[in-house]
Amino acid sequence: MIKKHYNDVEEFEVKEYGSTGTTIRWLITKEKDNAPRFSLRRFEIQPGGEIGIHNHTQEHEIYILTGKGEVFTHFEIKEIGSDDVLYVPPNEPHGYRNTGEDNLVFLCVIPYLE
Amino acid sequence: MIKKHYNDVEEFEVKEYGSTGTTIRWLITKEKDNAPRFSLRRFEIQPGGEIGIHNHTQEHEIYILTGKGEVFTHFEIKEIGSDDVLYVPPNEPHGYRNTGEDNLVFLCVIPYLE
Repeated sequence: MIKKHYNDVEEFEVKEYGSTGTTIRWLITKEKDNAPRFSLRRFEIQPGGEIGIHNHTQEHEIYILTGKGEVFTHFEIKEIGSDDVLYVPPNEPHGYRNTGEDNLVFLCVIPYLE
Repeated sequence: MIKKHYNDVEEFEVKEYGSTGTTIRWLITKEKDNAPRFSLRRFEIQPGGEIGIHNHTQEHEIYILTGKGEVFTHFEIKEIGSDDVLYVPPNEPHGYRNTGEDNLVFLCVIPYLE
């Protein structure tokens, strides 16, 4: 059993996909925790910041902790806020932006693929 | 892209392992959402309630949303609260109890095994 607080985990700036004002903490990983199948991450997007649209073969399971924003594909925009849940299927392009006045904070689970 | 609010998802009482005062919502599943590899669940344990100790071959990745409580094995007890993160390895016995005055609410990811 491993217990930690999210603040114990190093925070990195997200630079991929033209992202702005965004950080990530890899809360549970294969490398640090020996978690074999998936990783739990915590994102914070500052007001006005975004993660640019991108896609990959892994799915996402997401829970919005706090803040307001949008998740977008090439075809739609959905408003998101606290206690919303998102499922992004494999290969679907997706991005996120903060449209509120506080940080948009969410958890995002991604699998390790063989 | 699937978006829902946790309140949109049916809540079930947890009856296994001698659990008391506990409910579960299966937020994202293979059956409903076509999520292939893991399921995101949301538990609420009422004050004084608990999930009895048990074990299984799946690991857990857990994020505490609100409340205070304890996670326990046969060998140790750890206090848990908001924004704590837990990793429970495969096969490790574990249980949870609410020691606070508000509901203990946490997210728990579990894999689908072949």
